[in-house]
Amino acid sequence: MQDNIDRMQAFAAERGLDVRPHVKTHKCIEIGRRQLEAGAVGITAGNVGEAEVFAGAGFDDIFLAYPVWPSGTKAGRIRELAGTTSLRVGVDNAAAIDALADAMGEEPDRLQVVIEVDCGARRSGAPPEAAGDLAQVARKRGLVPAGVFTYPGHGSAGPESREPAAQDQEAALATAVRSIEAVGITPQVVSAGSTPTVAYATDSVITEIRPGEYVFCDLDNTRLGACAEDQIALFVAATVVSDWVPDQAILDVGTKAMGREGTPEKGFGGVAGSKAVLSRLNEYHGFLAVPGGEARPSVGTVVPVVPNHVCPVVASFEELLVTDSEGTTLERWEVAARGRLS
Amino acid sequence: MQDNIDRMQAFAAERGLDVRPHVKTHKCIEIGRRQLEAGAVGITAGNVGEAEVFAGAGFDDIFLAYPVWPSGTKAGRIRELAGTTSLRVGVDNAAAIDALADAMGEEPDRLQVVIEVDCGARRSGAPPEAAGDLAQVARKRGLVPAGVFTYPGHGSAGPESREPAAQDQEAALATAVRSIEAVGITPQVVSAGSTPTVAYATDSVITEIRPGEYVFCDLDNTRLGACAEDQIALFVAATVVSDWVPDQAILDVGTKAMGREGTPEKGFGGVAGSKAVLSRLNEYHGFLAVPGGEARPSVGTVVPVVPNHVCPVVASFEELLVTDSEGTTLERWEVAARGRLS
Repeated sequence: MQDNIDRMQAFAAERGLDVRPHVKTHKCIEIGRRQLEAGAVGITAGNVGEAEVFAGAGFDDIFLAYPVWPSGTKAGRIRELAGTTSLRVGVDNAAAIDALADAMGEEPDRLQVVIEVDCGARRSGAPPEAAGDLAQVARKRGLVPAGVFTYPGHGSAGPESREPAAQDQEAALATAVRSIEAVGITPQVVSAGSTPTVAYATDSVITEIRPGEYVFCDLDNTRLGACAEDQIALFVAATVVSDWVPDQAILDVGTKAMGREGTPEKGFGGVAGSKAVLSRLNEYHGFLAVPGGEARPSVGTVVPVVPNHVCPVVASFEELLVTDSEGTTLERWEVAARGRLS
Repeated sequence: MQDNIDRMQAFAAERGLDVRPHVKTHKCIEIGRRQLEAGAVGITAGNVGEAEVFAGAGFDDIFLAYPVWPSGTKAGRIRELAGTTSLRVGVDNAAAIDALADAMGEEPDRLQVVIEVDCGARRSGAPPEAAGDLAQVARKRGLVPAGVFTYPGHGSAGPESREPAAQDQEAALATAVRSIEAVGITPQVVSAGSTPTVAYATDSVITEIRPGEYVFCDLDNTRLGACAEDQIALFVAATVVSDWVPDQAILDVGTKAMGREGTPEKGFGGVAGSKAVLSRLNEYHGFLAVPGGEARPSVGTVVPVVPNHVCPVVASFEELLVTDSEGTTLERWEVAARGRLS
């Protein structure tokens, strides 16, 4: 894990990019601190609850990279957060800008907003050419239009999707920057994702990158070519509890531990150092399919399961057991922001 | 929810069956108490951690319906639990029986074991005709062989699977009972699942049922015909945060709230009172596909999302907002056993 943190920081330094790691992956104060110590400029959070946990632990530069709507208790919580930390939040529409300005009451200038634009993921984000208009709405309401961001989610479709998605990202951000500059605003930040696409990020327009998964890596990123197998740094310790069905071992990890991240074709996780995959999951049962020729682990054996997608797995657990490279447990770190869903 | 609890209890009373609800679905003390108040004989837990949370709240009759292996800290924890509550645990192999007997030290007779047999789900469970041998091993080691259980997981494959799976269940349990009686042991309990199959359970051999999902119901059970739409009692309050893509609204519920329970074909959850479904999920984003002709909810609107499979959804959250039938919030109940994964 420490190697992953250091490698990403060195890569970004070489490219002239700031790193603002996404804490959604680990939700863990100790890991966030290590990212800052390595040189990150601040952190990225996925929702208000995550931002609150890290702000409470002293993190003072947080970007909530999400098109926030301040519903329910969130208006007061965002105002509170913006009072104690340098807070940027995402917006992609004028109604949300209005609602956020209302939430900030007399001090809208304590909140920086970053316009989200779409670069091809067709998820959230305004069209890049609308960024200037939205920045103007924000300025009129007294909020601070700090820049633009996007997320190249379509870069995870397959290994060949990564580079074109990164190019789409750069093009969309360049358009958004021009749109914002055209209304007389200079963006302070031009923010890009993501572990699968980060290798192709350049500083031609991008100022910061927000990778998250790189800290642990996982099978999905290995398949994409975005990390190597020996960079995978998180495993779920699973115990074989039953072995009545031939070529199958039942592990005590199901969807409540692993999420249902995968497909029947690629499986729902693997076992490190083996070709065995979880072919199916129930809530508390993982169906480990052991290929012919491989030894099936016996009942009671603890095996290291590698997630397909690490983020939901971490969010299932209360704590991480931190080991050295030989597997000796050194510390336990709390997954402090788990359960923070909004 | 209260109607669902009362209806299941009335059904079981009519059939002469005990109800031992599975708390995996709600992980909530207040709901467990309501199930007991309605007449449940005890509760079913999915792992040691759940059993500990409920035992700590005074629940004194717990069946851990899982083939437990006492790895790591679990030997001591099971011994501790068995000292404070009437504890039954599942076993399906002789090695686990040995390990559990070792875990119990000088007092193996404080632990009741229930032999798990397979009835067609091909998950865990010994062949039914092996139940007697396993019961004998348990008795020799000083544990109390209390009976047999099975889980008809293959009854969830489709509406037409429910009744045959229930028949498989009854046949497997009958075989297991004969096998146990043949070694001179009278089973105290013959325990059966499950919300999808419970309608077909009879008291010809079964003594207790362990439904879990019935308490909230969900879309999967509606599709199976195991509950009616107006019995669905749990919704996720989701806020529309973005609407740039035609016929799509982005909700602030992704896999970390909903799990990835579903398929691209059936979707990953629906909106109550509409035909809109979550066609895709990212971690913090739900892609709500709004069919032509239906009004798309505007940004800022809160919509009630119905899970496909309710159990992993509940386990994502810290608390439940309890409302009356008009939707007025009455109380907040903690999801006390969430995060307890082993």
